[in-house]
Amino acid sequence: MFSVSVRDHMMVAHSLRGDVFGPAQALHGATYVVDATFAGPAVDDDGILVDIGRAAGALRVVVADLGYRNLDEDDRFVGRNTTTEVLAQHVADRLAEQVGGAGLGGGRVTRLTVTLHESHVARASYERGI
Amino acid sequence: MFSVSVRDHMMVAHSLRGDVFGPAQALHGATYVVDATFAGPAVDDDGILVDIGRAAGALRVVVADLGYRNLDEDDRFVGRNTTTEVLAQHVADRLAEQVGGAGLGGGRVTRLTVTLHESHVARASYERGI
Amino acid sequence: MFSVSVRDHMMVAHSLRGDVFGPAQALHGATYVVDATFAGPAVDDDGILVDIGRAAGALRVVVADLGYRNLDEDDRFVGRNTTTEVLAQHVADRLAEQVGGAGLGGGRVTRLTVTLHESHVARASYERGI
Amino acid sequence: MFSVSVRDHMMVAHSLRGDVFGPAQALHGATYVVDATFAGPAVDDDGILVDIGRAAGALRVVVADLGYRNLDEDDRFVGRNTTTEVLAQHVADRLAEQVGGAGLGGGRVTRLTVTLHESHVARASYERGI
Amino acid sequence: MFSVSVRDHMMVAHSLRGDVFGPAQALHGATYVVDATFAGPAVDDDGILVDIGRAAGALRVVVADLGYRNLDEDDRFVGRNTTTEVLAQHVADRLAEQVGGAGLGGGRVTRLTVTLHESHVARASYERGI
Amino acid sequence: MFSVSVRDHMMVAHSLRGDVFGPAQALHGATYVVDATFAGPAVDDDGILVDIGRAAGALRVVVADLGYRNLDEDDRFVGRNTTTEVLAQHVADRLAEQVGGAGLGGGRVTRLTVTLHESHVARASYERGI
Repeated sequence: MFSVSVRDHMMVAHSLRGDVFGPAQALHGATYVVDATFAGPAVDDDGILVDIGRAAGALRVVVADLGYRNLDEDDRFVGRNTTTEVLAQHVADRLAEQVGGAGLGGGRVTRLTVTLHESHVARASYERGI
Repeated sequence: MFSVSVRDHMMVAHSLRGDVFGPAQALHGATYVVDATFAGPAVDDDGILVDIGRAAGALRVVVADLGYRNLDEDDRFVGRNTTTEVLAQHVADRLAEQVGGAGLGGGRVTRLTVTLHESHVARASYERGI
Repeated sequence: MFSVSVRDHMMVAHSLRGDVFGPAQALHGATYVVDATFAGPAVDDDGILVDIGRAAGALRVVVADLGYRNLDEDDRFVGRNTTTEVLAQHVADRLAEQVGGAGLGGGRVTRLTVTLHESHVARASYERGI
Repeated sequence: MFSVSVRDHMMVAHSLRGDVFGPAQALHGATYVVDATFAGPAVDDDGILVDIGRAAGALRVVVADLGYRNLDEDDRFVGRNTTTEVLAQHVADRLAEQVGGAGLGGGRVTRLTVTLHESHVARASYERGI
Repeated sequence: MFSVSVRDHMMVAHSLRGDVFGPAQALHGATYVVDATFAGPAVDDDGILVDIGRAAGALRVVVADLGYRNLDEDDRFVGRNTTTEVLAQHVADRLAEQVGGAGLGGGRVTRLTVTLHESHVARASYERGI
Repeated sequence: MFSVSVRDHMMVAHSLRGDVFGPAQALHGATYVVDATFAGPAVDDDGILVDIGRAAGALRVVVADLGYRNLDEDDRFVGRNTTTEVLAQHVADRLAEQVGGAGLGGGRVTRLTVTLHESHVARASYERGI
């Protein structure tokens, strides 16, 4: 199994509803350093699973569409907490739209994992099939 | 599949018995930077697999119970080498006790991985089910 | 010259006023991973410039007082942009209050540097005397 | 499941054939920081899956045999692009030769993963069985 | 004193002339992860020493002009070894051209440091005034 | 001003005397990831301040002479606490012996800084002239 990972980041504001979140119930924010990992069983004749430049470009589009926002006012997350887990799933699902069929990876990518590092001591991931 | 990882560290002394260990047969020590990864298929209605603050707290308890000790004199490791692999398993098993049933992660965590980084060039992990 | 550095982090929301900030003029947020470096010419008879545990505790207090907030509504920054540079200076000045006289470092610390990492590709620092 | 990882690096020149590579079609180079992860279900009586020193030694031999070269002129890659994916597979296959039978890990290693970090924002991996 | 640092990278081929370089006398290559640090005594009314976005853009231009090349055939380095030290100085001098006068940092930047990380275990820097 | 930095590590046991150290008064241990930075105003005709390979070799000798030991029983530290600060100074002084005269760096190195990272959240440095 091969995989290719690219890294980018986004900076957002949000609050989290629920007593479990303690002080994070207040409006605050985060830098998420985002790793997107594309995995599949084979490379093409050029020796690539997915072109690193194109993978980075795809991730750039997804994080740019989330960054510099207050996610509490974002229509895509109405009624949902934008936890690190939920945001990892959102990024993965958005990337998956570009990977299917003849898209990014030319049909070779079968799994996708997105990891959001919220600090030097905490991160969350979401892994899914294509 | 979702996962949440938290990081902490512990500083211990120990020696390792067996010719394979070369100079590490002498009493020496290590800082282990510890990553604990909790994984499961779903998040709850709050959008969390496991609360990052509670996960960090659980890891803190486990590493505090090992840190600032000479593991050669620790009753929990009599007759065993406290290699990085063995310590990773120990930390994982201790964390697993807090994850079962209605504990940390509310029954959503199905796998647990603990990685101990012993330097910038070496680490060991232990992964287990819940 | 000796120095001791400790690391912690804080998660805040804010916006930045001024065309130069582009999309960062909108309400967004950041995780700042904070390094505080205490420097001085000599250690005491115990071999320490400043106790690492106490230094970490002092930094913890300062970042906890900023974290999980919307800095746009914080009285301490009225009329000022909370750029990474400004926040680095704020953290350094707050730490300096604890370092003077017989405080943290027992008079041995003569310089203080605070670095805020806002992502894996950008950071800002403020260095000052005591 | 246990795993042990060791890190080393190599510095090579190469070019990549194919329009998809854009500017990387020109002769350029890379530092690959290489992580080799050995995984298996059990440790031996000494508490080790694979000795970290011996694992590091095995990786050293493999990367030394690639480093400080122009891979475009290397007989082992004639007619193939030496992408990060391809090089990860090459390193894994070379390490696998040392892991089989009574070799490194004494038959306990069942999976091998090699990750090549080509920068702070991109990496590729190859995972295989033993 | 304030400072702002941004990070980027470049991938080049080169060889080094002189017995001291041992195997690095052969054509090989490197990824240089580049940190550019702009320092000065004061921030402007917006609270910035230098805009992080503009600083990153300036660094991008400089590293793009070096990346994906064989530096042995680059007119800018005829008769000189492109060691990590020499390349750090080159990047710093190129950035300095953009910092003087009313350029990047609006006259507030007085020192510039460029660090090139050539691997996880080695780096070189060049620091100069403006 | 140029500088070159190399990284290595050592694993030691020790205890620290004095109430200020709390639990670290017990015998424990640490991995110190060590960065040695050699600085000077000029490079030689080969374009080097100090050869990275030779610098790494010099650091290797110094850390090998400390590693895999119980520093409480080391004649070099009788009556002294082996704090991170003290060990940074020791490593720097040992390296300095190799830098003077026509040694490492051929007289070009004028300052030496040694940083010991004792965990992902704490480090200490010692800087001195040559």
